[in-house]
Parts: sequence; C-alpha cells; structure tokens
Amino acid sequence: MQVDVKPNKPGKRAHAISPTRQEDYAEWYQQVIREADLAENSPVRGCMVIKPWGYALWESTQQNLDRMFKDSGHQNVYFPLFIPLSFFEQEAEHVEGFAKECAVVTHRRLEAKPGGGLQPAGELEEPLIVRPTSETIFGAAMAKWIRSYRDLPMLLNQWANVVRWEMRTRLFLRTTEFLWQEGHTAHATAEDAQEDTMRMLDIYERFAEEYMAMPVIKGEKCSWERFPGAVNTYSIEAMMQDRKALQAGTSHFLGQNFARASNIRFQTENGTDEYAWTTSWGVSTRLIGALIMTHADDDGVVLPPRLAPRHVVILPIYRNDVDRARVLDYCQRLAAELRAQPYADGRVQVEIDDRDVRGGEKTWHHIKRGVPVRLEVGPRDLDSGSVSMRRRDRPSGEREEITHAEIVARVSGILDDMQRGLFERALAFRNEHTREITDRKEFEEWYTTADDERSIHGGFAISPFVDDPRVIDALSALKVTVRCLPLDQPRMKGVCLFTGQATDRWAIYAKAY
Amino acid sequence: MQVDVKPNKPGKRAHAISPTRQEDYAEWYQQVIREADLAENSPVRGCMVIKPWGYALWESTQQNLDRMFKDSGHQNVYFPLFIPLSFFEQEAEHVEGFAKECAVVTHRRLEAKPGGGLQPAGELEEPLIVRPTSETIFGAAMAKWIRSYRDLPMLLNQWANVVRWEMRTRLFLRTTEFLWQEGHTAHATAEDAQEDTMRMLDIYERFAEEYMAMPVIKGEKCSWERFPGAVNTYSIEAMMQDRKALQAGTSHFLGQNFARASNIRFQTENGTDEYAWTTSWGVSTRLIGALIMTHADDDGVVLPPRLAPRHVVILPIYRNDVDRARVLDYCQRLAAELRAQPYADGRVQVEIDDRDVRGGEKTWHHIKRGVPVRLEVGPRDLDSGSVSMRRRDRPSGEREEITHAEIVARVSGILDDMQRGLFERALAFRNEHTREITDRKEFEEWYTTADDERSIHGGFAISPFVDDPRVIDALSALKVTVRCLPLDQPRMKGVCLFTGQATDRWAIYAKAY
Repeated sequence: MQVDVKPNKPGKRAHAISPTRQEDYAEWYQQVIREADLAENSPVRGCMVIKPWGYALWESTQQNLDRMFKDSGHQNVYFPLFIPLSFFEQEAEHVEGFAKECAVVTHRRLEAKPGGGLQPAGELEEPLIVRPTSETIFGAAMAKWIRSYRDLPMLLNQWANVVRWEMRTRLFLRTTEFLWQEGHTAHATAEDAQEDTMRMLDIYERFAEEYMAMPVIKGEKCSWERFPGAVNTYSIEAMMQDRKALQAGTSHFLGQNFARASNIRFQTENGTDEYAWTTSWGVSTRLIGALIMTHADDDGVVLPPRLAPRHVVILPIYRNDVDRARVLDYCQRLAAELRAQPYADGRVQVEIDDRDVRGGEKTWHHIKRGVPVRLEVGPRDLDSGSVSMRRRDRPSGEREEITHAEIVARVSGILDDMQRGLFERALAFRNEHTREITDRKEFEEWYTTADDERSIHGGFAISPFVDDPRVIDALSALKVTVRCLPLDQPRMKGVCLFTGQATDRWAIYAKAY
Repeated sequence: MQVDVKPNKPGKRAHAISPTRQEDYAEWYQQVIREADLAENSPVRGCMVIKPWGYALWESTQQNLDRMFKDSGHQNVYFPLFIPLSFFEQEAEHVEGFAKECAVVTHRRLEAKPGGGLQPAGELEEPLIVRPTSETIFGAAMAKWIRSYRDLPMLLNQWANVVRWEMRTRLFLRTTEFLWQEGHTAHATAEDAQEDTMRMLDIYERFAEEYMAMPVIKGEKCSWERFPGAVNTYSIEAMMQDRKALQAGTSHFLGQNFARASNIRFQTENGTDEYAWTTSWGVSTRLIGALIMTHADDDGVVLPPRLAPRHVVILPIYRNDVDRARVLDYCQRLAAELRAQPYADGRVQVEIDDRDVRGGEKTWHHIKRGVPVRLEVGPRDLDSGSVSMRRRDRPSGEREEITHAEIVARVSGILDDMQRGLFERALAFRNEHTREITDRKEFEEWYTTADDERSIHGGFAISPFVDDPRVIDALSALKVTVRCLPLDQPRMKGVCLFTGQATDRWAIYAKAY
C-alpha cells in the first residue's frame, strides 16, 4: 500500500467550485448544487426542479426513514392535497402561526379569453388551500375513525408535497413547494403521545447522525419558537460550515389542543369519553441542503456512504481498442466482485463510467457529485494487478495504489471508515465553534465580530435561558435565535444574559437558516 | 393432506360483502373498498383518503414498477406542482384536449375577513395551474438541458400527484386528485422514441400480467382516443368482472409536436440542428381499482401474492393463558421459518394476528383484505403437528390440514400457484366474454341485451375498424368505445360495421370505465 500525495500544481485550477466557501459561502452553496446537478430553480417562482442525482439523495433519505417509521409501528397513508378554507377558520391559533402564506385555489377551469389566451373560470363556492401541513385534514379523519381506546394508538405518516408561499427562497433550504413526510398520531394518554413524540425525535437524530453523518443537538423549543398550537416542540439542530444552525427535523407534542379543534374523542376502558392526545413530526427536502452544507467542500458535494446512491465509480482508461476491450473486461470483473460485498443494509453499489468524455472532465464529474470512492483502471494496472484508488474524503490529489484483492476485501471497511470520519470531522467542527457564554458582552461579540472577511461569526453559544419575551428583542437585534434547550444537559445554575433572572435552564443560541 | 369442504350453513351470512356482484356491481365495488379499509371519500369533493392497506398496495405497485423503470435506464426527478398559465396557452392543442378542467391558484395568502373568517388575498399576477400532467414543464427544462445528441436519450420519470377536476368520481377509478407516475423522454430519432414508447408499454403489460395477475390487451388508440398532441397513443386494456374495459396504462409517441411547442432542439452528430422526438407514459392509482375489479369476490379483496403486502397471516387460537403461551410460542417459530422462505424477489411476508378480537371477526378481517394464506393454530394443532390452512383463492369454507414441515416447504409454491391461478381465471373470464363480431345487428345486441338483471352486457367485441369519425356517433348511441387496435393481431380482411368500408384492421370495442 502506497500513499502518494500530489500537491495541486500552480497555474492549474485549484478547486472545482468557484467561489470557494472562504470567498462567498452563499454563492458557493448555489454553485455546489449546480455543479453536482442536484436541482435548479423552476420557471415557477420559488419552486425547484429536483434533478436525478438530487432526487436519488431524497430517495435514499426516504427509504431509510421509511423503514425506521415502519419498524416503530407507523403506517403510510395519503391525504388530499387540498384543504377546505373552513378547516383553517376552525383552527384560529394554527392559522395565526403560519398558514397565512399559502396557495389558494379559487377556480376549477380554464376558458378562452376574448381576444386570445386563457383565463380562470368556474369559481369555487369555497376556496381550497394547497396544504401547508395536514393537521386539520388528518384530524377530521381521525375524529371519524377513532371510537374507543381499542383504536389507539393510531400511528400514521404520509410522504407528500406541501406549499408555503415564501418570499425569499434557496434551493432545498426554503422553497415554496417542498417534499416532506408528516407523521400524525393519536393516543389514549398524554404519556403515550409524549413517548411517540420523543421516539420520532430519536429516529430523526439517529438518521441524521448514522446516515447523514451529521451531528445534531436534540432539544426543546422555547415558547415563541413552538409550532402554533403545540404544547411542546422538539427539534434536532445541526451546525453548518458557516457556523449557522439548521433545524433539520421537528416533533410536536400537541396535547389535546388539536383533538379539541378536530373533535377527536374516544371511549376509555372505563367507559368515559375523552379527547385523544396527538403528535405530529416531519422532515423535508431541506435535509439535502443540510447534507450539502455539512460535508461539501470546495470541490463539491461529499456524500456519506450510507446515503450515497453509488459508493464506487470505476473509471476505465485506455488509448486504443485493444486496450479498451481488456480494460473494460477487467472493470466488469472488478465491479462484479465489489458488488458482491455487503455494505450497511445492502451491497456495495458500483458504476463503471465508460462514457465517451475526456478523462479529467469525467473525474471531476464524480468528485463534484461526491461519489465516495473512485478507482482508475488503465492497461498498466492490469499488468501490475493493482488499481489506483481515490477517496472523496481526502484531498483530490491523494491516491493509493491498492491490489485487486485488497480493494475487494477492504471496500466495505473503507466506506465505514469514511462514514465515521465524516461524522467525526463535523462533530469536531461543531465543538470548535461552540462556546459556553455567561457574559452578555462576550455573547454580543460572539455574534458581531466577524471571524474573517466572510462575516462569519462565532457559532453556537450555550448560555442560561429564561422563557421571557424580553429575550426576543435583545436577540433579534443581533439576528440570533434560541435554537433549543438541549435535552441531554444537566441543570446548572445561571443568570439570563438579557433579563438578569436566575435560571437552571440553558439554551443553544445561534444565527440560523 | 386432507381437503375438507364445508358448505356455507343455511341461515349464516353467506358473503362478507353486501350487495354481491350479482346484486349491484357498482355498490359492491364501493363496499369492497370500505370493508377492506382501502380508502374513503374526503371532505374535499372528488378527492380520496388512501388508508394504510390501500396505500400499501400502491407502495407495492410503485416499488415494482420503479425497479423496472430504473432497470430500463430511466431516472427519477421531481418537477413543480404548479405550472404557469402561459405554458398552457403555448400548447393550444394540448389544452383543447383535457387541460380545461383543472385547479387554478389565483391567490397566495389568506387574510381575516371583516366580520370574521378568512378570505383569499395577494392576487397573483399570473394564475398557476395545479399540474394535470407535466409535458409542458418537463419540456421547458429539456429545452434548457439538451444541447447535442450526446445529451440524448434523456429518460426521466416522476412519481407525483396530479389534479383534473372531475364531476363524477369513484374511489381509485376517477378522482380529482390522484397519484401516478409520468415518464417523459427525449430522443435523437423517431425510431428511438418509438422504441421507448413500446418498451414502456411492454413494462406496463408485464407489470399487469405478472404482478397484478391481470391479463391485458396491448394496442394502439384510434385517432379520437389519442392523447391530445400525440402522434400515437398506446394502451393496455383489461376486462373487469362486469365485462367493462378499463384502460390501465398509456404510452404516447409524441413525435416532434411537443418538442416544437417547447423548443427542444439538439445538434446532431452531423452538426445540423433538429427538434428532439419525445414520449410520455403513465399509470396511476387507478390500477388499484383495476386490481379490485379483476380479482375481488363477494367476500372482498383477493390479492395476487406478488403484490400482497403480507402473504400469510397466522391466527393463534387459545382459551386460557397456558395455551396462549404455548400457541404463541409455536406461532413465532412457525413465522420465523416461513419468513426464511424465498418468494418472488424477496421473502415470504408473515403476520401473526394476536389482537384481542373475536375469532370470526379476525378471520373475516383478513378475508376481506385479501391476504393470500391464512393459518389457524390451536392447542390441538401443536399436538398433531399440523396447522389448518385456508387459501383466499378458494371458497372460504375450504380448508386443508397441513403439517408444519409441509407448509414451510410448500409456501412459496402455493403462492406461485395462486398467482398463476388468478391470472388464468381472469384470462378465462375475458376469453369467455370476448366475441369476434362481423355483423352490425349482432354487435348492437351484444351491447343492448342484458345478460342478467344487473344489465351487464356482452363484453369485448373484436370487429373490423376504420378510423372514420362517423364511427363515433354510431358507437356513442350504444355507449360503446373503441378500446384499442391490438398490436399482436394478424391483419385480416373485414368490413367496418358502421361505415361499410373495407379494412384489414380490427379493434377491441367495449363499454368502459
């Protein structure tokens, strides 16, 4: 085994993505998506087209989460896209929170316009809202379906598109239409509902950490960050490479609030009549944005192997037809042996890229898309019985000569090693940029003193917290938010930096997406 | 092996579904869906709620088709739900066909109404249409993405919801919103596009016949049944148990028509500039309706094993806690052995139904849902070393005593046998109700003389065909349509029954869903 590190030659392009993270983080993000061919803006303002490589990442996400949902007893269903306006009127508090900015269907037909063109016709008696989330319509069904304690718990989930009219959008992170899953469950007791709320938060944490290799902090939201109508909202929060926080999943304990609004009642074992206890929880295509901003570098996307649609790409190299036949034949055999190796819940996924494209372009194609392992195979490698391996988690100039037998034997282990390495790197980054702060001046400096020319500030602050609205004003001047009150944290005495009140609760504060 | 047929006792309910097919076919269909808990109407007119068992059937459908699409080189993507009104104006012919009845979004906000309630606000400059199908928006993207012949073929597919405003709806068969997949491909030559059109039709046929156990006739649509703007439309047509036809999937060769409208051009190998050749193809949740109407009987759904979410349900029987422990322990061991058996592309799927529900109710629950094999296990079976097996494709009173070793060894074979048997039964039914008719009087009698009190008429007619609009009037008086011109049919001389013209093309005629 030889490790051979080639420094980037001067004069040669140093990075595949321009600008780099250092030069312009926001623009770097857009360029990574463009160069990896993940998605693009659509002709409909605020909506995106998810391209094959981007959609394959969403499919990986879906498959893994879906299996975890089913293993924990949840069943998939599908509810209508449209919700009658009257449902929103019933849930005044709900509407107050976020349902105002939504797409409203008012007509059911197009007709020819005098003078050419088309115009809406057939006005609806009651406008329909394109679902921004589906608590109300699940609630109406649950009210019908649930009769007694024997029908509980009712554990439902749907994979669907939702629409929330957004003024400022960014691919994956905030789009007017997005794809997500929304779980909706009903229970006989508060304890049982609270338990499911936490079970799903744990599943989100496990998915983020074990599949996305993205460390997250599980916590409770403060009152003003709660889902409207929820008793408690919990989230997982991750740190992006610009040290901002990204809320990557939420799980809500809704108490009996939504059951009351939707009239979800059941007969208890004792024969009494009670409102059910409900929960809801969701993650969305936003996770793809989080994946990019956690691992991508100045050469493009870096995929954690457990989510990568392909683990290994074999790049055949040849100059003439004789070599071509020999090399391709060898690549096929190598691919077959690699594909027989187990990895995670399945097998190693291998592609041979035999497209008629220049070698450099082909290599960068796979670097930018984040394929974990690249194997170059040329005529000389056939003679030497080894191939040239490059790992996406190492500098692009670093390669390792590895024998045929060794790569087959080691490929699963290499992928495991990458998965672990990416997580550890992200965790170290988060730790490096997280500080316990108990002084207001230090807190303000943490968020106003730019660390470099990109105006990237400190990162996460762990500071004492009291749930008092006066905190909001002080924070909003700094453009900082309370991300969550971590669950796995001992209670320590402290003093709120903004109200001076004593408290034993601490929160994660950060600028956020 | 003993087969023991119990006749239904007089006085006991003979069937789980009321009315029977014989008594009221349309109502029977609704009741099968209700009793099997597949779906129900939603508070939004024309839309449905797909419940867990119904959605599990759609997931089976998706998984199997998706694998076939990917194996044939197609990639999944996701395009926006909304299409700008102007896109429809560009495609005059397209709109003429079906895009008139669609949901139109005109506002992007709700606001409080003076006097209470909510009203639409924030009128959009340009109305948005909820996609009824996505040729136009795929076309706009393809026009951007395709530069040269190297970018072709471009083979895309999406799984999505679409909306077509329907006045008269029926669960699964015709709903305002439905789930489907829509493939959209672009090619460098007419031949290549035509080939993909047929490849997808073949995949639909294979899925229908091998997975759904539903025989279909592949054919070309006549001019007035074509997808608006298509050069050729092909479909698979199946016969339901009321002898009506159901179009179960379509594949369109669009020529250069849509490429011209969307400006999808490419540079050829010779350096000339040409319009691409495109196709589109789709199947929808309608397939679940077809599945029901092909196999269900007066006891409910009958599932072909290859699509069944569960193959075997084990029903433990016991009277006291001592027996309960013994029986459940045995059931767990039996389930583990059955689950280790291969079936189709995976393993045998087994459920133990240990719910606290009366035995009869539990049994009928699984009969109505169509689970292929039921195994009853009681204390006496433990002693005798055998279990009591019932197959959903046999009369509900028929059971077979089978040893533990035998059921484990035979279970995959039994499922294969059921799959084949369901297909053969459906094929025999179709053949029985298909007639070659060359006489107009006979044709009219075939569709006007009721075979029984349900006013079910003849079935499929195979008759000579000429593509002449005069045929439409004659047929519509009989409420009969031209289903397709079968592809696998020799050309024979004949005379059109309606125009008297000589022809060598024959068509399948039928009443249809």
